[in-house]
Amino acid sequence: MKRIVKDPTTRRAEILEAAGELFRNQGYVHTTVDAIIQKVGVAKGTFYYYFKSKEEILEAFVHSMVDTLCEEYKKIAADSTLPVMEKVRQMLRSQSYHLDKQAEWMESLHRPENRELHERLNIAIILKIAPVLAQVIEQGNKEAVFHVENTLETVQFLLAGSQFLLESGIFHWEKEEQTKRLQAMQMIIERSLGAAPGSFSFL
Amino acid sequence: MKRIVKDPTTRRAEILEAAGELFRNQGYVHTTVDAIIQKVGVAKGTFYYYFKSKEEILEAFVHSMVDTLCEEYKKIAADSTLPVMEKVRQMLRSQSYHLDKQAEWMESLHRPENRELHERLNIAIILKIAPVLAQVIEQGNKEAVFHVENTLETVQFLLAGSQFLLESGIFHWEKEEQTKRLQAMQMIIERSLGAAPGSFSFL
Repeated sequence: MKRIVKDPTTRRAEILEAAGELFRNQGYVHTTVDAIIQKVGVAKGTFYYYFKSKEEILEAFVHSMVDTLCEEYKKIAADSTLPVMEKVRQMLRSQSYHLDKQAEWMESLHRPENRELHERLNIAIILKIAPVLAQVIEQGNKEAVFHVENTLETVQFLLAGSQFLLESGIFHWEKEEQTKRLQAMQMIIERSLGAAPGSFSFL
Repeated sequence: MKRIVKDPTTRRAEILEAAGELFRNQGYVHTTVDAIIQKVGVAKGTFYYYFKSKEEILEAFVHSMVDTLCEEYKKIAADSTLPVMEKVRQMLRSQSYHLDKQAEWMESLHRPENRELHERLNIAIILKIAPVLAQVIEQGNKEAVFHVENTLETVQFLLAGSQFLLESGIFHWEKEEQTKRLQAMQMIIERSLGAAPGSFSFL
């Protein structure tokens, strides 16, 4: 039998992808390291060369999910040709695109078996995405489009509220209730950032 | 052996209290219905007369936790002699008192074995406490101390942000970081409610 040798980056990505599929299909709680190993078709030692435990692969997987979005945000934030509100709009568009692509995931994130995965994903978003958004808000402060102190902390609070109340799926809001919550959020964002009324009406 | 017959309300409260102690000491995940039955010293049938399952007793327990605070809030909200900012202050004081009394609980809520209990507690707070706070904010609107539409939804968003970012214990903020987050929250609350700058500086 020929042993297939793959370069470490490819191998690691393969293991992460297999783990992700199992988390999505049967939930993090019900996924074992053995099942991941079997799915990728590698030796136990190969798995443990990359990840020490199930917790470690969960952490790595969550970060890989957030990093894709984060990289795009960073590109948008760094583009010196764009005015600040255009950056905000592009970031939201890019987020919707990600959410659509991961519609199947969203469903799975709301299952009790993925409660821990979901919580870690929310934490990673607060810790990794908020600083990039804060950088854009700072540009807005300089352009006098926004007027806000404690930028990072403000962005984190707004992200936390929107994730927990509107996107967590733990509240089963009726359509009309969700609409009113979105209106409230638009107002809270505009006022918190010291932005002009209506400037976030595209939300 | 003499059978002790207790009235249903007492019995139900006893079972709830025993369940709560077990949830706190060993976590919801590791608590069995049998352990609850044994702790209270009742027959299986007695337990199932009050609660259909472990999930049902969790739900009842969470509501009993929130209801105590909710009742006090309702009393404060209904007191027609108090100006609106005094009501807000009294509510916050009453909340701190509860948190202090339940310091042991707070610790336990952050354990992974109580992740589900904590999530349900957060949900109950959003659904039961927010309407009472919204009633007070409405009074503030009438007195022109606040200026906010979609009152209930705004309160829910602010509660969600503060619970998830500041009180969930899932972020381990350093003291200075926590201070900056509190400052940001004060500003977000004041601006969102259309309150005078500094009016929430007692936070």
